[in-house]
Amino acid sequence: MKDFTEIEGGLLVAEEFVAAGMAAGVKSEGLDLMLLHSKVPATAAATITSNRFRAAPTYVTKRHIADGSAQTVVANSGNANCATGSEGMRNAERMAALAAQETGVPVEQALVCSTGRIGVQLPIEVIEAAIPQAAKMLSRDNAELAARAIMTTDTVPKQAAVEFEAGGRRIGLGAIAKGAGMICPNMATMLCFICTDLAIAQEPLQVALSRAVSRSFNCISVDGDMSTNDTVIALANGVAGNDLISAPEGPDFERFQSGLSHVTRELAKMIARDGEGSTKFVTVNVTGGASYQDAYTVARRITNYTLVKTCIWGGDFNWGRIAAAAGAADVDFDPATVQISIGGVLAFAAGEPVEYDAAAGAEAMKGDVEITVDLGMGGEQATCWTCDITPTFVELNV
Amino acid sequence: MKDFTEIEGGLLVAEEFVAAGMAAGVKSEGLDLMLLHSKVPATAAATITSNRFRAAPTYVTKRHIADGSAQTVVANSGNANCATGSEGMRNAERMAALAAQETGVPVEQALVCSTGRIGVQLPIEVIEAAIPQAAKMLSRDNAELAARAIMTTDTVPKQAAVEFEAGGRRIGLGAIAKGAGMICPNMATMLCFICTDLAIAQEPLQVALSRAVSRSFNCISVDGDMSTNDTVIALANGVAGNDLISAPEGPDFERFQSGLSHVTRELAKMIARDGEGSTKFVTVNVTGGASYQDAYTVARRITNYTLVKTCIWGGDFNWGRIAAAAGAADVDFDPATVQISIGGVLAFAAGEPVEYDAAAGAEAMKGDVEITVDLGMGGEQATCWTCDITPTFVELNV
Repeated sequence: MKDFTEIEGGLLVAEEFVAAGMAAGVKSEGLDLMLLHSKVPATAAATITSNRFRAAPTYVTKRHIADGSAQTVVANSGNANCATGSEGMRNAERMAALAAQETGVPVEQALVCSTGRIGVQLPIEVIEAAIPQAAKMLSRDNAELAARAIMTTDTVPKQAAVEFEAGGRRIGLGAIAKGAGMICPNMATMLCFICTDLAIAQEPLQVALSRAVSRSFNCISVDGDMSTNDTVIALANGVAGNDLISAPEGPDFERFQSGLSHVTRELAKMIARDGEGSTKFVTVNVTGGASYQDAYTVARRITNYTLVKTCIWGGDFNWGRIAAAAGAADVDFDPATVQISIGGVLAFAAGEPVEYDAAAGAEAMKGDVEITVDLGMGGEQATCWTCDITPTFVELNV
Repeated sequence: MKDFTEIEGGLLVAEEFVAAGMAAGVKSEGLDLMLLHSKVPATAAATITSNRFRAAPTYVTKRHIADGSAQTVVANSGNANCATGSEGMRNAERMAALAAQETGVPVEQALVCSTGRIGVQLPIEVIEAAIPQAAKMLSRDNAELAARAIMTTDTVPKQAAVEFEAGGRRIGLGAIAKGAGMICPNMATMLCFICTDLAIAQEPLQVALSRAVSRSFNCISVDGDMSTNDTVIALANGVAGNDLISAPEGPDFERFQSGLSHVTRELAKMIARDGEGSTKFVTVNVTGGASYQDAYTVARRITNYTLVKTCIWGGDFNWGRIAAAAGAADVDFDPATVQISIGGVLAFAAGEPVEYDAAAGAEAMKGDVEITVDLGMGGEQATCWTCDITPTFVELNV
């Protein structure tokens, strides 16, 4: 049996989930408020930024998700509600309470997210006015509207969906994400909401989500800057009626893991591709690692090496900077066993630079760029994704 | 007694040191070869990049300095001689051997440095032709020529000098440095050569140099990218005739440490100020740290946070990004005890944003910018330096 099938649609392919997106007025123009709701109780899991200046809504979400369930998520763009002190905390609690009230669930069933400028108080009155309207708009048809409502500097909405089987039932799994700047998740400012009608207990849901995030959102970098607001939330409402998955094992769990990992990886790649001001999508494969962590650390260092990313923008086949970036990672390897290639054009092997065809080198730097570094230390491999850095990126971030 | 006095002049204020700078032809135009020589044997110490893709000359220098002495340094700009395999290693050895021969010292007395593009073989024939000429040009008058010969994308030569007393003798200490990009020393591509006529044993010389580097070059960042070639070399030829300093202690050593630390700090600040494409010099003070390491880690994270540096270029009083950067450092603190100010304008205190005068905020972002973050965790403090990131930086680095 195939693990999963990609399907059309985004956030709302699973049963009994509804959403709304609207212009509340946090931003001067455009959609800025998303409401997401499961009509029945749902198991919930989340991963949240490790930044010590975490935004107020991340505290509320962490508290409300502690019981392993949630039914409603409210999110705004245009303001991060971060470094906003006690007033910010009251505002985040107010958002959650109002979203809970308007969707008819206890307050601890509502989660809250914000993304936008740090250090400015949320215009809570416009959000208070909008949440009841958003609740009235809740519908199964609003998947794309929801995706648009969480965008900040994103140029395209980001959504992905799969279906798979568990216990003989067809399970839907859909998700949306946002993020284009302050992206170096651990988590990044990225938000991602995932809805599935799978019946699964909280522990295996959290295990699957953490695994999926570690190989997707934690593998992308736009600017190397960890955000204060990053949050990924997964809701599983069990409406599909499969036998409950109670542990992170077995064929049903593995198919769910495959589908979830696929969706988060696709969304992560969409974020890297939509990096602020970027013109090229960059894949960095590191093979031959003594461990996954070694391969990941080197790949990550390359995706965060500014001078690699500026020369990708310029189309310069400057593989030496990739060597410098790999060597700057805190990982043991011997340059004499390393191979470096870009777009399949080998540039360095066995400790020596390799003669390469200049035209092929130039071609490898056009469009999307694929970097491969083999460490020659073992059999583990990792892939990270990033984009080029351009003058436009700087101009967007003043 | 005053610890030291700043004096005019650069590399050659100490007795019996001579230098030359010339255009060998490694670059298509401009000076690109420096030769430095002590007419008498000198104690030597160095700090070298921890990048695993270290350049060939750093291996030769490390080997030749192992005996704690050196008399000659040859350095080229325009080519890093890094990731150049066995041919690169032979070329670095050839440079050292020729420099030793032409200055009349054993080969192990010659150190070698390179800076420039990675992964391209050195045009060794032009260097071979130039070294004998450079040896003929050696003179006490060439301090600035030497400073110019090691420049790559630097816009100004960087030199500093002090004098101090040890054992009743007047000691001169002069230095030059280069660096503008791939600067995040640990070490950065920066090179620095320091000459003093102090009589000092190798161990205290190395101790003083390592201390000075940790609080100077290791506190600056232009692009956050660790280089493959960074090298700082100190030569002490003892010509001043003071009683030999044999241990890292006592008033003579402390005065030397003060002067050396001052010179390296001034050169480090010159490098940050001359960051590729930069328009503003940025000082980041972190106070209230539980330890120096904590304060340093937070200051360093702020100087490497791209989105802080882009909004400094734009003149945006966006203190929230400073909060995000501080929180992204792997240091324990409570946001409720943190204070953040820019140019003396307080923006965040006691867990709350502070109302500030918009005109004063705008003024704080003009010209050089001074950021202060108090962690409220203790009494330790650290200072790091950086510059803004501009579209020109990206254009310079394709």
